[in-house]
Amino acid sequence: MKIAFILFDGITWLDLIGVYDPISRLKTMHYLPDLTWDFCSCKKEVSDNLGLKMYATKINKNLENYDVIVVPGGLGTRSLVEDELFINWLKTASSVPYKVSVCTGSLLLGAAGFLKDKTATTHFNTYELLKPFCKKVSRERIIMDGKIVTAGAVASALDLGLFLCEKWAGKEAMLQIKKSMDYHG
Amino acid sequence: MKIAFILFDGITWLDLIGVYDPISRLKTMHYLPDLTWDFCSCKKEVSDNLGLKMYATKINKNLENYDVIVVPGGLGTRSLVEDELFINWLKTASSVPYKVSVCTGSLLLGAAGFLKDKTATTHFNTYELLKPFCKKVSRERIIMDGKIVTAGAVASALDLGLFLCEKWAGKEAMLQIKKSMDYHG
Repeated sequence: MKIAFILFDGITWLDLIGVYDPISRLKTMHYLPDLTWDFCSCKKEVSDNLGLKMYATKINKNLENYDVIVVPGGLGTRSLVEDELFINWLKTASSVPYKVSVCTGSLLLGAAGFLKDKTATTHFNTYELLKPFCKKVSRERIIMDGKIVTAGAVASALDLGLFLCEKWAGKEAMLQIKKSMDYHG
Repeated sequence: MKIAFILFDGITWLDLIGVYDPISRLKTMHYLPDLTWDFCSCKKEVSDNLGLKMYATKINKNLENYDVIVVPGGLGTRSLVEDELFINWLKTASSVPYKVSVCTGSLLLGAAGFLKDKTATTHFNTYELLKPFCKKVSRERIIMDGKIVTAGAVASALDLGLFLCEKWAGKEAMLQIKKSMDYHG
């Protein structure tokens, strides 16, 4: 299984890292030894709104060969929904089975057309922004519709990560990973 | 108030980002508008054990003028406790009032001599490693002894961040920040 974590300027790092931490333990704790991932972006250096920068590992790479894309949220999503270059790049993931988002990342999944006829969620302040992109906006913390999995605001990233751990490796693996993180959520 | 987040190779990013997210909201939500921070390291590029890289914003900078240092944990701490160059650099924080750690970051505070005569905690698998560095090892999730604040394993980073928000800006600020993150822990 091969995951593309999608990075962009104006990202909320906890949206990314909250999912990345439990999912990466699927590999380091030997539940899914063949799991791999890339940090994919349209540019090499990606910053949050406060100046903390990370490196992408793949730049402008076509996303079609991944099994999963994970799209975090952040203030940057507001302008990216209208950024043709970014959305066209994201659309290269159209055949990717699992499309996952945290927080306002669902606006980007929506702008790429991936939420048509789907029930999805987002940050609790942006339900109205998500409406035009999907069939129904849910207020659940995590909602799975087919293989589209969207989650709510920032801290739900950790719950989403554990949700995917259970989905891909079973409940016992998820519980061990949750324990190793000492997560009480 | 000026915070130094300490970065090093082999860091666990959630230890850092779990604290950084709520603390940075003290500024963006206008509770502490004068709050500033740097990401300080002995090198420009810092990676976790799985290859995710971030940028430090200050390299080899003397730490004495900060009000707070925040030291995350990670597998890298095991060798860093014996890395004279790194520990000598960390010791430049000896006069910094607040010394804060997540997970095995307390081993680094300990190796720098900051936990002498203090009660402290760490990741639940490394209590024995912490013993030689402090007066007493606590199994609490967060323990504050004077202005030394240490927290347990990975996910306690979020609780620690909110603990510091309350300490520095009051309970109402902390509750609003927790709500904005939609944190249920």
